[in-house]
Amino acid sequence: MGIPRIEPLELHATLPSGPRNLITDVAGVRVGHATVQQGEVNTGVTAVLPHPGNLFLDKVMASAAVINGFGKSAGILQVQELGTIETPILLTNTLSVGTAFTGLCRYVLEQNAGAGVYTGSVNCLVTECNDGRLNDIQGLHVREEHVLQAISAAGETFEEGAVGGGTGMCCLGLKGGIGSASRVVELDGTACTVGALVMANFGRAGDLMIGGRHIDTRSAGDRLAVKDDGSIIMLLATDVPLSERQLGRMARRTAVALGRTGSYCGNGSGDIAIAFTTANRVPHRGGAAVEAYRMVRDDRIDPVFLAAVEAVEEAIISALYHARTLTGFQGRTSVGLRDFLGLA
Amino acid sequence: MGIPRIEPLELHATLPSGPRNLITDVAGVRVGHATVQQGEVNTGVTAVLPHPGNLFLDKVMASAAVINGFGKSAGILQVQELGTIETPILLTNTLSVGTAFTGLCRYVLEQNAGAGVYTGSVNCLVTECNDGRLNDIQGLHVREEHVLQAISAAGETFEEGAVGGGTGMCCLGLKGGIGSASRVVELDGTACTVGALVMANFGRAGDLMIGGRHIDTRSAGDRLAVKDDGSIIMLLATDVPLSERQLGRMARRTAVALGRTGSYCGNGSGDIAIAFTTANRVPHRGGAAVEAYRMVRDDRIDPVFLAAVEAVEEAIISALYHARTLTGFQGRTSVGLRDFLGLA
Amino acid sequence: MGIPRIEPLELHATLPSGPRNLITDVAGVRVGHATVQQGEVNTGVTAVLPHPGNLFLDKVMASAAVINGFGKSAGILQVQELGTIETPILLTNTLSVGTAFTGLCRYVLEQNAGAGVYTGSVNCLVTECNDGRLNDIQGLHVREEHVLQAISAAGETFEEGAVGGGTGMCCLGLKGGIGSASRVVELDGTACTVGALVMANFGRAGDLMIGGRHIDTRSAGDRLAVKDDGSIIMLLATDVPLSERQLGRMARRTAVALGRTGSYCGNGSGDIAIAFTTANRVPHRGGAAVEAYRMVRDDRIDPVFLAAVEAVEEAIISALYHARTLTGFQGRTSVGLRDFLGLA
Amino acid sequence: MGIPRIEPLELHATLPSGPRNLITDVAGVRVGHATVQQGEVNTGVTAVLPHPGNLFLDKVMASAAVINGFGKSAGILQVQELGTIETPILLTNTLSVGTAFTGLCRYVLEQNAGAGVYTGSVNCLVTECNDGRLNDIQGLHVREEHVLQAISAAGETFEEGAVGGGTGMCCLGLKGGIGSASRVVELDGTACTVGALVMANFGRAGDLMIGGRHIDTRSAGDRLAVKDDGSIIMLLATDVPLSERQLGRMARRTAVALGRTGSYCGNGSGDIAIAFTTANRVPHRGGAAVEAYRMVRDDRIDPVFLAAVEAVEEAIISALYHARTLTGFQGRTSVGLRDFLGLA
Repeated sequence: MGIPRIEPLELHATLPSGPRNLITDVAGVRVGHATVQQGEVNTGVTAVLPHPGNLFLDKVMASAAVINGFGKSAGILQVQELGTIETPILLTNTLSVGTAFTGLCRYVLEQNAGAGVYTGSVNCLVTECNDGRLNDIQGLHVREEHVLQAISAAGETFEEGAVGGGTGMCCLGLKGGIGSASRVVELDGTACTVGALVMANFGRAGDLMIGGRHIDTRSAGDRLAVKDDGSIIMLLATDVPLSERQLGRMARRTAVALGRTGSYCGNGSGDIAIAFTTANRVPHRGGAAVEAYRMVRDDRIDPVFLAAVEAVEEAIISALYHARTLTGFQGRTSVGLRDFLGLA
Repeated sequence: MGIPRIEPLELHATLPSGPRNLITDVAGVRVGHATVQQGEVNTGVTAVLPHPGNLFLDKVMASAAVINGFGKSAGILQVQELGTIETPILLTNTLSVGTAFTGLCRYVLEQNAGAGVYTGSVNCLVTECNDGRLNDIQGLHVREEHVLQAISAAGETFEEGAVGGGTGMCCLGLKGGIGSASRVVELDGTACTVGALVMANFGRAGDLMIGGRHIDTRSAGDRLAVKDDGSIIMLLATDVPLSERQLGRMARRTAVALGRTGSYCGNGSGDIAIAFTTANRVPHRGGAAVEAYRMVRDDRIDPVFLAAVEAVEEAIISALYHARTLTGFQGRTSVGLRDFLGLA
Repeated sequence: MGIPRIEPLELHATLPSGPRNLITDVAGVRVGHATVQQGEVNTGVTAVLPHPGNLFLDKVMASAAVINGFGKSAGILQVQELGTIETPILLTNTLSVGTAFTGLCRYVLEQNAGAGVYTGSVNCLVTECNDGRLNDIQGLHVREEHVLQAISAAGETFEEGAVGGGTGMCCLGLKGGIGSASRVVELDGTACTVGALVMANFGRAGDLMIGGRHIDTRSAGDRLAVKDDGSIIMLLATDVPLSERQLGRMARRTAVALGRTGSYCGNGSGDIAIAFTTANRVPHRGGAAVEAYRMVRDDRIDPVFLAAVEAVEEAIISALYHARTLTGFQGRTSVGLRDFLGLA
Repeated sequence: MGIPRIEPLELHATLPSGPRNLITDVAGVRVGHATVQQGEVNTGVTAVLPHPGNLFLDKVMASAAVINGFGKSAGILQVQELGTIETPILLTNTLSVGTAFTGLCRYVLEQNAGAGVYTGSVNCLVTECNDGRLNDIQGLHVREEHVLQAISAAGETFEEGAVGGGTGMCCLGLKGGIGSASRVVELDGTACTVGALVMANFGRAGDLMIGGRHIDTRSAGDRLAVKDDGSIIMLLATDVPLSERQLGRMARRTAVALGRTGSYCGNGSGDIAIAFTTANRVPHRGGAAVEAYRMVRDDRIDPVFLAAVEAVEEAIISALYHARTLTGFQGRTSVGLRDFLGLA
């Protein structure tokens, strides 16, 4: 997946991709979509599962970075405080955060009630971008069942583009959506993977940059894209053992990737990054008070940072590459990158 | 309101209270409750309106502080980034954040659709504590209509104790709930007010401190209060002109007030503070690019900080004072402070 | 050490102290002073060594919290970013931060040049409070040699009170200085220690609180103590295995301890907390890219937080207890707590 | 100044520069250098004065952002807490922060003693990068007098390149140093300026990007530039009225500019941004408790953010453009961009 290595899409990639060039190259990660689409309704839910087991009982170490906090994502504060993710991560539209929260909450309660665990409190992680250009967002068309659909559909391969939470998104004057990519780095002779998945909905027409080449998309006619008020959700997964501090550092580097694709992080763009590692697990219930973790030395972490930047950059371009032209709410049309460039 | 100035409730208050000793002593602030109570259901919603007008069109300047981020409150990130509050602030139970988010969202959309404003994006501010000791929290009994009820009920006087969002809360081994208080300070010869409202659900039995006196509440029999894993939401309102930076500084000082009532901010306690000023308004739509604001000099701000600490401290004790003994979920009983002390 | 368990000094301590009731109860920690005192000069340097070895080669895991950032401490940013301390921690007066930085820098370069390590960059950790009430601070009387003296003097026992960096400090209307205390908690059947050392120079006359009892110190005559514009440096050491995230959480809880002694964190008070653990070491040079660490489970961390709060509270009162009345710069006198209370 | 608009230096600039294309296009800003250079010594001090008056008495509103905190800059914490800058901003080498702190301290005390103000506390703002590749950094060759020299030399025009604090810096495999640029934006019909000054010492050989074009500098032979462990200081000045919150947001956008020049913010790179506005002044002594400020509406701030990104990007490239090839410490040579490209 990712994008073909052809002009004019060629990126300045210095690290190799994983076999799928998707976030699921990180072993255990699963992604699923529920697309809600009919007439003026173009929205949905995407679910990213850090591993296929019971996330509430077997949490992954995590952190988050707020690049620009014009956004309504739920659950970020607790990720920063406790350094763990304990639910699937949902990506949906801005006004559906509440419904997705409730649906995710029920899912976790159902999954864990039988186990008899104390489940009164669960940190539902729900992220969002505003798809109101192409979707009747005020109609609140996402329902709780779509959350379950997206989670059920989660697998190692998944579609990119205008699908799931990305269905109605727009980006840099073109059609946006879900994109993903991965990079492989070597640590102590072992190949490790950093994967990215984004929901790209940011940027002004005219600012797109691919591999350093500026591509003026204003002729695509998205007259609402005169301001950078969209948002982007950037998820980073890795099997490199990182501490919460290091995961936060990795998450903050997504700002560099945004810059590489033409963004200047406009006022209205909610730019949120969440990073987790599958290599450090935090069991919900513990025996001993003290547990062992692993952590890459900071003076060896640079390839991981670079991999994160390259993976997020390619994930953004991949979202544009896979999203095809769509006409939605109030007859507005958003043109896909391939259609814009005349690629197949 | 607040608490009577009698032993053993006497606080070390150095500043006078406002006329009501409530957050509504700050002109324009309104508070309303919707209490949801039947059998094992003991929950609800409290709404705090920074002013009685259209908050979306006429935002108040604000900031927030995460004292301990074990919590699921929604909307905090945007308050920190943009420095404004644009909806009523809701306080409810942990698992009802999603429902309250959606209800609040609909309320704002309805209120602003006729006005023709761009309302695709609204930052719903929903805070929470876990009332699962006394409430069937997994039943998700808060409905969207309760949000509207709480907002509609908002007025300058309001009940404290086990009411609204505070209905099922527990605190320091006793019955918790909603509490409020205020302090008056003089700046340049003008009386200014700092008001606090808390939803108090934190602390271990045995740690309660009132005016420096330790009161051992372990005999009240709350066997679940052996850990400090409750949470507290602390809202601060003022008519002192403060900048976003200063509002953040004021919000961070709530940690001192927590310490004065016996908390040590345990791991499981989501301690969140939100502060706003009615003296700096941010119109949704502006004419000129540059607007005027006012700000107290930092070298004159100390009385405001002190007022915030004293108001939050008294609001916590007032929540305990007004909450009466309640038997709820699975027959668990939480004893009220007055009942515990044998006061009327 | 610490303070005698007698009225009116009795604290509400719920955890036992270590054998010395000093920060050096954490095995390996050393403290030394260089006191610079002559006539109107009342200042100095205190050095805290996280362990007696070469700290640059064998760093300790650490974090820091800025409770109120009105302060000039150097090195905090890197502690927060990299999660390590690699030099002794110095405590001195505000205007001597530069000199102490340079002296500490030379000390590390000298110690590490022979080892052939790359030592171009070292994060000198220098903290400060303003002793200008009792010290001719503008005379810049601290010299680089005092840094070396303090480090050389470091041992497991050390004086508290008006000594080292604390020589000229004032606190809550009385004489301040250096104070220390410790608490012991049990984790998995093993006794662990949390130690605190403070340089106490904060607070208004009239606000002192000891064990919940307000003690009005205004009659001690410190007319400059009408504002809370002093500052406090709070160091926390532990042998509990904590992650950088957890060390930051522990550091933030010092705000609670400040509240317990009467502070409301006034505008002018630079309140800085630094926390480190001796249980997680970070070697300057590593063999493997990935290293192992240990971390207490968050749901078991509460005793550690409580120990930190109690140790800092007692350390503050201990600073007051040990500091005797001093007349310094421009003939100003600051009265010691024991002298004020008429204790021996 | 800035860089010539010629291939291969052409940037994708969308906003016009100010008349000098320097940070001093912001009225009142002054910059001066003291270059310390002899044999293996290649270092110095650069001073940026936010306005030509007494900064301690007439502070400018400010904020700061830590993009990557591997750095030893002093004074950042207080800028973040109080939102003001009250001294010239110094840029020097890592190990000279202490000396520069002391020199700056003496300068402010001298300037303000006669005025009889309370000058015990001053927040000396000293930033640094590590020039140890070309400079005998361990020799601590910067002396206090160099601070005064740099401040005295401050004017509206100034040299860029290997001068002042930038004398010994390296960047992206080439010779680094001081660079500056500006952008003009229109708000309400008034032309406003955003200026940037950087001390560029970051990046790996091979990562340089100019206007989207990758330029492989590895053949320039800087064998130490295999890691991104240099650092960059990025100063932003503007006459746009911004609040402290907004200044912080602007400062955070420097990460985007770093990304545009090829950085991925490596572990060892201390990337620090400081932003101030000359349009909001904070007098040291005030009459009234409440003062008036101005602030651009957030929904009008995007051109300011974009200007900041473009100005920092050009300032970095300008530092490279103006710095000529230098042979320094231990005979190491760093090649200038113009020499590398064969430009005059």
